[in-house]
Amino acid sequence: MPDRPSRPGGRSNRVLTAIYTAVGELVGQRADKISFPVIAERAGVNPTTLYRRWADVNALLEDVAVAALTRDGESVPDTGSLERDLTEWANIIARDINRPERARYLRAMVAARVDLVANCAITDARREQAAEMVRRANERGEKTPTVAQILDHIVAPLYYTVVFALPLDDDHAGRLVRDVLAMAR
Amino acid sequence: MPDRPSRPGGRSNRVLTAIYTAVGELVGQRADKISFPVIAERAGVNPTTLYRRWADVNALLEDVAVAALTRDGESVPDTGSLERDLTEWANIIARDINRPERARYLRAMVAARVDLVANCAITDARREQAAEMVRRANERGEKTPTVAQILDHIVAPLYYTVVFALPLDDDHAGRLVRDVLAMAR
Repeated sequence: MPDRPSRPGGRSNRVLTAIYTAVGELVGQRADKISFPVIAERAGVNPTTLYRRWADVNALLEDVAVAALTRDGESVPDTGSLERDLTEWANIIARDINRPERARYLRAMVAARVDLVANCAITDARREQAAEMVRRANERGEKTPTVAQILDHIVAPLYYTVVFALPLDDDHAGRLVRDVLAMAR
Repeated sequence: MPDRPSRPGGRSNRVLTAIYTAVGELVGQRADKISFPVIAERAGVNPTTLYRRWADVNALLEDVAVAALTRDGESVPDTGSLERDLTEWANIIARDINRPERARYLRAMVAARVDLVANCAITDARREQAAEMVRRANERGEKTPTVAQILDHIVAPLYYTVVFALPLDDDHAGRLVRDVLAMAR
């Protein structure tokens, strides 16, 4: 399916293309302006604190997001049923990431990504948590969806909704869990 | 589940909190720096062109994303089976948004969002397309998932993967379609 050809009204299209390209370039540049010295000054800390701890600004942004999204010692629900575990877990995620501050950190993190990332700390953490719940359910002899399905059909829609600043309704997490359990085999 | 209490090592925590807060503030500020005059200068157009066409920079960013993600006259697949329609459609979306330029526009759009949006042009467009395919499948007497399920389980995971700069594998779209069809009733 080719890109659409230029049409009558080509000048207007050229102007639009110039504007859109400018926006894309400016957005790409913005990430560079958040530098260690700028952050250090605003935070009132010595820049060496930042250089010692993080390889670059992206690594710091990643940590900001992870810090905002996960907590030390956060335990994975263990209720004795995968449906209840997933429901509790999905609701915890939804409540957490839907707070304005956490949503802002999350958008900051993705906005700073330009190239594909080999590992996303958030996805990795959620994958481990999902694997733990699935493993326990399998030990109990329950049918389960795969870990990949839990990431695609519970984690992804929740993060998508929050990152796109769309409203999350109260039962959204519960619906996603019921949907993914329909894939269990 | 309360936020974790301050622990021994509280000074280190305070420093981290100051740094994370600074990053959050800087990210919030960045959106302001993309102004109409700055865009106009870079695009080589008269600023009035921008003021006439868009209410504000966010509206322009939104249009940039929509322009990058949808095409005039893009038609919804109509193959005679919902499974084939969804597979073709999901693969078109995946290929489109996975191009580096389109992924960048998409991140630019979400990065500019601060408050909840009442309408997201992308979600709205995808919802309409999904509704058309479901309507035709219902007319043929096929069992179908709901339009909301198609958004949650096909659209959201594809956009999540691209916005988070995670790799999309070739069969990702196909897997999502097979998963969502397991919910058909």
